[in-house]
Amino acid sequence: MKISALPAPPYYVVSFTSQRTDVEDGYGEIGYAMAELASQQPGYLGFESVRGADGFGILLSFWKDEQSIRAWKAVVDHIEAQRRGRQDWYSRYAIRVALVERAYEFDREQ
Amino acid sequence: MKISALPAPPYYVVSFTSQRTDVEDGYGEIGYAMAELASQQPGYLGFESVRGADGFGILLSFWKDEQSIRAWKAVVDHIEAQRRGRQDWYSRYAIRVALVERAYEFDREQ
Repeated sequence: MKISALPAPPYYVVSFTSQRTDVEDGYGEIGYAMAELASQQPGYLGFESVRGADGFGILLSFWKDEQSIRAWKAVVDHIEAQRRGRQDWYSRYAIRVALVERAYEFDREQ
Repeated sequence: MKISALPAPPYYVVSFTSQRTDVEDGYGEIGYAMAELASQQPGYLGFESVRGADGFGILLSFWKDEQSIRAWKAVVDHIEAQRRGRQDWYSRYAIRVALVERAYEFDREQ
């Protein structure tokens, strides 16, 4: 995983914090397909994601504006993946939509 | 790790995405001390954190308002930990300060 190269704020971040169950059925394939689909949405800027060995994970997706997040949510709402997420893959999750006001970066190579 | 129980928005989230080096010297102890110190700050609401086997990690800390984040930053700026972070523990990081506008939760137990 890499840190996303993003434009200067303001932009939006959607955090998805989740606890996975032990159910794998379709998770990897559908997750990959969802990431592909998101990356094709207007206003998509990138994502960062990590999951620990205990199944606890955080995914950040970055978006140009509120409108692009709502459009993506409308797509997701009609997708089987969301139902499968609640039924099979996650025991708990929290989604938070936030407006990034400022950002700082450090890169040892620079 | 658990998903934080938070008040209804608005509140702030600070995301800290980072790539660890292989250097361990003091990292765990100082990280623990920093988390303790943060939790004692006015306006601190909680945190969620995960790091993968490849050393890529995301930490979210939640704050009541802008003022509490600035006060915490002023503390951090005077702490050795920040210099050590850049010198030893992280090859790269990004910090993003964002205002949470809305949040959704799912809990299978409920």
